[in-house]
Amino acid sequence: MLKQFIPKAEDSVRVPEDALRKTVVSIFEKMGIPQEDCHLAADGLISADLRGVESHGVSNILRNWVHLIQEGTINPKPNWRIIRESPAITAIDCDRGLGMILAPKAMEIAVKKARDTGMGMVTMRNGRHLGMAAYHAMIALKYDMIGMCLTVAGPKMIPTFGAEPRLGTNPIALAAPAGKEAPFVFDASTTVAASNTIDDAVRLNIPLPAGWVPDKDGTPIMREVEPDYFGKGKKFLSILPLGSTREMGSHKGYGLSCCVEIMGGILTGGGYGANPGRPNYNHSVTAYNIASYMDVAEFKRTMDEYLQYLKSTKPAPGHDRVYYAGLIEAECVAENKAKGILLHKEVVEWFHKICNELSIPCLV
Amino acid sequence: MLKQFIPKAEDSVRVPEDALRKTVVSIFEKMGIPQEDCHLAADGLISADLRGVESHGVSNILRNWVHLIQEGTINPKPNWRIIRESPAITAIDCDRGLGMILAPKAMEIAVKKARDTGMGMVTMRNGRHLGMAAYHAMIALKYDMIGMCLTVAGPKMIPTFGAEPRLGTNPIALAAPAGKEAPFVFDASTTVAASNTIDDAVRLNIPLPAGWVPDKDGTPIMREVEPDYFGKGKKFLSILPLGSTREMGSHKGYGLSCCVEIMGGILTGGGYGANPGRPNYNHSVTAYNIASYMDVAEFKRTMDEYLQYLKSTKPAPGHDRVYYAGLIEAECVAENKAKGILLHKEVVEWFHKICNELSIPCLV
Repeated sequence: MLKQFIPKAEDSVRVPEDALRKTVVSIFEKMGIPQEDCHLAADGLISADLRGVESHGVSNILRNWVHLIQEGTINPKPNWRIIRESPAITAIDCDRGLGMILAPKAMEIAVKKARDTGMGMVTMRNGRHLGMAAYHAMIALKYDMIGMCLTVAGPKMIPTFGAEPRLGTNPIALAAPAGKEAPFVFDASTTVAASNTIDDAVRLNIPLPAGWVPDKDGTPIMREVEPDYFGKGKKFLSILPLGSTREMGSHKGYGLSCCVEIMGGILTGGGYGANPGRPNYNHSVTAYNIASYMDVAEFKRTMDEYLQYLKSTKPAPGHDRVYYAGLIEAECVAENKAKGILLHKEVVEWFHKICNELSIPCLV
Repeated sequence: MLKQFIPKAEDSVRVPEDALRKTVVSIFEKMGIPQEDCHLAADGLISADLRGVESHGVSNILRNWVHLIQEGTINPKPNWRIIRESPAITAIDCDRGLGMILAPKAMEIAVKKARDTGMGMVTMRNGRHLGMAAYHAMIALKYDMIGMCLTVAGPKMIPTFGAEPRLGTNPIALAAPAGKEAPFVFDASTTVAASNTIDDAVRLNIPLPAGWVPDKDGTPIMREVEPDYFGKGKKFLSILPLGSTREMGSHKGYGLSCCVEIMGGILTGGGYGANPGRPNYNHSVTAYNIASYMDVAEFKRTMDEYLQYLKSTKPAPGHDRVYYAGLIEAECVAENKAKGILLHKEVVEWFHKICNELSIPCLV
């Protein structure tokens, strides 16, 4: 996370993991979600907060989910079903169920198929938001498999040379196990920054770095942008693809977003993110059984060697360490488990308000 | 391709496709490559040139391959063999054979597995350069499948915050069929620009755009860079990850490069790109059988709708069209087939020289 997005100590409080988890479970229960699923959904959100991925934890996402369940957009008790199946593939219809709850179930199916055939993939149409994509990819780790998760959302990214948003932020998550080292866990939107991170900037009144958003006419803004650039409290409606400008490779971020839209959207049968009239969150999860490719112990040894090699890169001036994807997050988990999860005071206020509304005890 | 990289008419000649193809086949034959494989290798190179991907056509790559075959690094007659197999996965050892020749064969195996199980993946260890990755991904198209190709090379990319190159340019290629529209064909390195494109800049004396390369100490250079920045005729040894700086998302380009290094390198059993003592080009190819996911005609209809939707994006000021990956290239093929392939005069000179050395007729 960029330094400016780390909540300031005076604006935040630390909440013990267990208290936060119990409160979130209670909220989900009041939403009519079956109890076992409440624990699953809470675990996904809390995992994001433990990993320091505040943009996909309780602060940004939970209140939106509560709203969408209350208005009927998210189905709390979906009748999800398998619509097509082959030895390595399962296609399911999510019946508007929360991706945060259904993607772990889909990943377990993918893992089973991977054990039988070498790899397994489950596509999920008619779904809803799945939270932090890495959560689902990481399920594969405990089976000595590599996990991948793709998810497609509504239009936020402008295509290279375009003036209007046409693609989702469409993240890619990939988790691969190591031996002694923290696992490699990549999870990134194909835009310069995640949509929730940009919403954070507006909420916390932080300027956006150069190269994040386009101007009204689609021209990339290559200087720092005030959070109220389009009006006080107004969200930014468009984000630039990773690469920011054509000369710096925005066509690659744009193309990667299309890849996700095809492999996690169109191929599910549920269409692409921007299809009119649908709050589309289609997804796909894939598990790769390492033992079908090579000796598992050798894979982990090589991963350890590789990750150590990356960490030991000589740093550039002004930096004291080189990281790899998943390393900071793993270190963050240890700290947050010990000290509690950092929540902005404004988020704590929301918890008190919603718990009061739902007549449940607020442990936050 | 950026405008400055399009060869100037006065520096170039147009060579008919057939003449170029015959000459390339003759060169490969003289290298001791079996005749059928010569046609395959030539087709891969000529396809890149037809698609306007000069960086991966005869201009940059062929002379290097000739050199590597002559010095014994590339094995012209490899005994490639299957070393592990499951219903969806085949792992092969390439015996130092040219990826350009072996990856199409691997993709045919992946297609066969995909027909049986839904998807098929072939990993290729101990390989050599495979040319334009899109060529291999596109093989899946004629079977109504989606194709993916990953390839891992020696270290060129510096990690975010790092001062020395540790990762390959590690491209990702994905090809998906459409109905009436040109297929979606994505093929991009995970660096800001491909290594060959940067070599082109040095060869053609073109300044590099801001955000492409780091300074000697690893600091991203965020202004235009003279092609002789590190000395006259000297290659740039490092390239920045897609995203250029941490604030603009270079950790995403870096992380994607690691994903390729894991899925197309470590998982092959051949290790990561930078392993000392190996000119490592490990690869993987994957085929996804659309019919295992959904109705093929519906997939193609949706792809047509999606690609038209992207093309019809309102352009930003200063631009007259919005493209999607593979569209310019498809238009380029039609033009180059009709008019001939554009070669820099310096490349034509090389052809005359090598044909003379090998005592073969030069039709270029």
